[in-house]
Amino acid sequence: MSSPESLSAPEQPAKIHLPRTSESESLKKIRHTTSHVMAMAVQKLFPKALVTIGPWIENGFYYDFDIPEAFTEKDLKSIKKEMIKIINRKLPLIREEVSREEAERRIKEINEPYKLEILEGLTEPITIYHLGDEWWDLCAGPHLENTSELSPKAIELESVAGAYWRGDETKAQLQRIYGTAWENPEQLQEYQRRKEEAIRRDHRKLGKELGLFIFADVVGPGLPLWTPKGTILRSILEDFLKQEQVKRGYLPVVTPHIGRVDLFKTSGHWQKYKEDMFPMMAEDEESAKAEQGFVLKPMNCPFHIQIYKSELRSYRELPMRLAEFGTVYRYEQSGELGGLTRVRGFTVDDSHLFVTPEQLDAEFLSVVDLILSVFKSLQLKNFKARLSFRDPTSDKYMGSDEVWEQSQGAIRRAVETLGMNYFEGIGEAAFYGPKLDFIFSDALDREWQLGTVQVDYNLPERFDLEYVAEDGTRKRPVMIHRAPFGSLERLIGILIEEYAGDFPVWLAPIQARLLPVSNDFLPFAQEVAAKMRILGIRAEADASSERLGKLIRNAEKDKIPVMGIVGAKEVESNSLSIRTRASGELGMISVDEVINRLKGAIVNFSNF
Amino acid sequence: MSSPESLSAPEQPAKIHLPRTSESESLKKIRHTTSHVMAMAVQKLFPKALVTIGPWIENGFYYDFDIPEAFTEKDLKSIKKEMIKIINRKLPLIREEVSREEAERRIKEINEPYKLEILEGLTEPITIYHLGDEWWDLCAGPHLENTSELSPKAIELESVAGAYWRGDETKAQLQRIYGTAWENPEQLQEYQRRKEEAIRRDHRKLGKELGLFIFADVVGPGLPLWTPKGTILRSILEDFLKQEQVKRGYLPVVTPHIGRVDLFKTSGHWQKYKEDMFPMMAEDEESAKAEQGFVLKPMNCPFHIQIYKSELRSYRELPMRLAEFGTVYRYEQSGELGGLTRVRGFTVDDSHLFVTPEQLDAEFLSVVDLILSVFKSLQLKNFKARLSFRDPTSDKYMGSDEVWEQSQGAIRRAVETLGMNYFEGIGEAAFYGPKLDFIFSDALDREWQLGTVQVDYNLPERFDLEYVAEDGTRKRPVMIHRAPFGSLERLIGILIEEYAGDFPVWLAPIQARLLPVSNDFLPFAQEVAAKMRILGIRAEADASSERLGKLIRNAEKDKIPVMGIVGAKEVESNSLSIRTRASGELGMISVDEVINRLKGAIVNFSNF
Repeated sequence: MSSPESLSAPEQPAKIHLPRTSESESLKKIRHTTSHVMAMAVQKLFPKALVTIGPWIENGFYYDFDIPEAFTEKDLKSIKKEMIKIINRKLPLIREEVSREEAERRIKEINEPYKLEILEGLTEPITIYHLGDEWWDLCAGPHLENTSELSPKAIELESVAGAYWRGDETKAQLQRIYGTAWENPEQLQEYQRRKEEAIRRDHRKLGKELGLFIFADVVGPGLPLWTPKGTILRSILEDFLKQEQVKRGYLPVVTPHIGRVDLFKTSGHWQKYKEDMFPMMAEDEESAKAEQGFVLKPMNCPFHIQIYKSELRSYRELPMRLAEFGTVYRYEQSGELGGLTRVRGFTVDDSHLFVTPEQLDAEFLSVVDLILSVFKSLQLKNFKARLSFRDPTSDKYMGSDEVWEQSQGAIRRAVETLGMNYFEGIGEAAFYGPKLDFIFSDALDREWQLGTVQVDYNLPERFDLEYVAEDGTRKRPVMIHRAPFGSLERLIGILIEEYAGDFPVWLAPIQARLLPVSNDFLPFAQEVAAKMRILGIRAEADASSERLGKLIRNAEKDKIPVMGIVGAKEVESNSLSIRTRASGELGMISVDEVINRLKGAIVNFSNF
Repeated sequence: MSSPESLSAPEQPAKIHLPRTSESESLKKIRHTTSHVMAMAVQKLFPKALVTIGPWIENGFYYDFDIPEAFTEKDLKSIKKEMIKIINRKLPLIREEVSREEAERRIKEINEPYKLEILEGLTEPITIYHLGDEWWDLCAGPHLENTSELSPKAIELESVAGAYWRGDETKAQLQRIYGTAWENPEQLQEYQRRKEEAIRRDHRKLGKELGLFIFADVVGPGLPLWTPKGTILRSILEDFLKQEQVKRGYLPVVTPHIGRVDLFKTSGHWQKYKEDMFPMMAEDEESAKAEQGFVLKPMNCPFHIQIYKSELRSYRELPMRLAEFGTVYRYEQSGELGGLTRVRGFTVDDSHLFVTPEQLDAEFLSVVDLILSVFKSLQLKNFKARLSFRDPTSDKYMGSDEVWEQSQGAIRRAVETLGMNYFEGIGEAAFYGPKLDFIFSDALDREWQLGTVQVDYNLPERFDLEYVAEDGTRKRPVMIHRAPFGSLERLIGILIEEYAGDFPVWLAPIQARLLPVSNDFLPFAQEVAAKMRILGIRAEADASSERLGKLIRNAEKDKIPVMGIVGAKEVESNSLSIRTRASGELGMISVDEVINRLKGAIVNFSNF
């Protein structure tokens, strides 16, 4: 139905690869050096400024100063100018190792109290980096050899923020300058473009502008309330996945949002995951002490296990695939909450598969197949697989070494069979088992964790799960935990940013708006909208009686993918003058064809 | 598609009307008198038995005795025989008023310590009822004039149970005999038939047998877990109502299951409804004391209000109908929990309508219209309306007299406009406003509360809700709270009992099962089942390789409404030999016609 050009295609991922500091030795040197150059410039212009620390971060660096007055935008410009002067002086960076006593002596000489405190935390040998012979700092490096290696056009000072010494609000307040520095001006330009794009695409801002969800102080941080438009997004994604799942033999179930503490003791959540759970609901202090009470579920697994366990199961019933869009609650620190990508209540597109050991490999592959096919339908193309294994030195995991070997082996076999592109993430496992995580890179090359598949021998053991095997003996099933989206909330947050709110037709809360050039044509517009709605298209007519220019501006502001303008010619020929967000004016098209193309876009997850 | 006979019709409601004791002066007399006759008989046969109390209950009466050994089934028979003897002696019942001192003297004379305790609680005049001149009891009456008015064939002793004196388990354990007594033997017979039917239809038993839902101790009482089959029931009902609502301009939303205590202080739930809420989740004792924490929502209203409040609304947006299948949690005492009809977590088919005062009457009528049309579709025919008003003498309600007059007036106007059959329930209002409740009578003449509509001027006031009126001024909207089903859980419990688990085709979790007479015909059966599934029919083929007789018995046990038997003749003519739960054998019918009739039954909420 839709022509190739009209396929939903968010802007192409950036062509220029921007390395992260942690990945690039070259960037580490550039950013350390730039940070020193900046600190030297600051002390030149503001002799009262005391230096503290100035580390690199993923996209640049910062430096914290103790200074009586806050830096202004104008100050940043002067500092930048001074930095360019320093760079142009082609100063060498010289590394020197000194004893603790010598370091202390030199710091006292220049009267830098914070450096003294930093020194206390260092072990010998202490290294100092000199910038020519005028300025030096305690630093572990690495650094460039000479400031001339820096490109002034690849450097920018970005912002000023307040910060506390050692991050402790009872200590001195400092002024932090954020800056960035790159290998070449092209990288800086690309970085700045992405930064602007990220602001433009910020799902918190767009979510508000497009009326998709709200947060309310009185409800609590991290607890989104979904408005009618946002609820449409949820339903589309939920309904799509439900249909896919039913085709593949998944069985929907519904379970409570709370359970007794005892349930989570058996599962091990209480022992290994308690700090991520909401506080217990206990009738009184005595019950609280005895840990007799209810808790909000942080995961759905113990509940699906209860359904499995409610009858003696036969091998004939396996694999049993219990599925639920289950809303779970996790007590993230409120400082960590941001929009939809980090919340306290979210809906997992969860399923728990109970399989015989013989079925494990095939069923794991078929779960991965489902996830890949879901991503393909949703046009999510840029992702890689992470083998999230346990960190064998940590005690936050449950179960024997043997069982971990078994389950990590199953995951490795699956990705190897599929020839998937993967990397290992040691320490990224769930407490009860390893995971295969799908990491999605968005249009701005930012990474987000989406779907996950987990192999679990531990919970079947802890809950004493059984099935009657073909030979009549009782055997232990293996569990697969899986969620293609991971969290409906996070997925929607990512989709908003990926599309910058410009949803393709299939996903748009309002797919088409009919715009009458005058009130005379409103009845026709309403009739067409009603016809579209009957055919399953989310359409509406604009009855606001504004002029056409205003109607179009409003529809553009609301990011309606398809606008159908209605005037005398259109009524006469039973057509609409189509204007789309993606391709602009498309001219007059008959109502029937518009409807067909809209229906095609919906079925094919594409655009008009 | 379906012939009139095949319309879904649960067994006709009982023809004989069985009055409740509270409704019938005659039954009060009969049951009081029978209870005295029984106590006299017991003391005759068991001279050591001490009497305590013996009140009427809705379907009969009981009497508690202090006796060293528990009554046996055989004892009940002897007691009944003795009662008949007493009845046949045509003893008069004589009322006597005595002073407290005289009553005390007489009780001491016959050495009945419990009677002495009862006497303490009575105010003068004390009344005594004599049974002839051999036996008497403290009693407020009323009684028949003579035991001869009792019909021995309308009396039955039903069961024995342990009970504590004054219901206090630290006090003496007593033996309670339950009995029943009616105006005539026909009533007793009908009562017994209904009792047996109620046991047969008990949704807790059927829910387990048919595998619809489970409870798990470790999850907690009153928290059902929905198995795959039960989840199908939920989805059918939810999807049906969602579709009806979308047609009528309702806007689905999704909100969290928890909110800060402050939210419920503003709504008034914390002040008026706290004892029905789960305990607070507080980080520590200090937060608990300061009431800083989260609570599970007992109602959805405060959340929908937050969505309304998130933008300044215009009169053009009203009525705004926010709808959610919202799961709420209420802390019912665990002793009160029973199956699905009284639970701690349940899903309300909730909606909150924000309307202008001018829109209130029309919108209220249209809500009632929706509810009536939903009941009609679901074939729920026997219901009446209750005007649930506040008890003006109670302090459990919130808001001014004027506002209550206004909202009660709106409800009364609506039922009068519609000419509905209604009665008043004083003291049945919600704490924030009056309700129109729909009370459904099931096939056994038992009453269940289903849907509800409420008018509310209070919450808009407390949350300071506004809209911009046509004249530009700010005005206060009125809220309508409504839920046609009330609770999805309770509705399903009622439907299970109403249909005795024999769901009509549209509602059955499995609608058709194909039974091959031998393994040779399994492929055809599977092919037909697959075809049916593609067409939206919940069909399966029985692959268990059992003999046909066993296959049929299993399908009957599972209450599958339509069985399609497949043998050589059927394969040859592309037909099925149909057997239905409702009408037995229907002979050979072509596959296409079977499919058409099944599809018709689904669309028309009927049976095959």
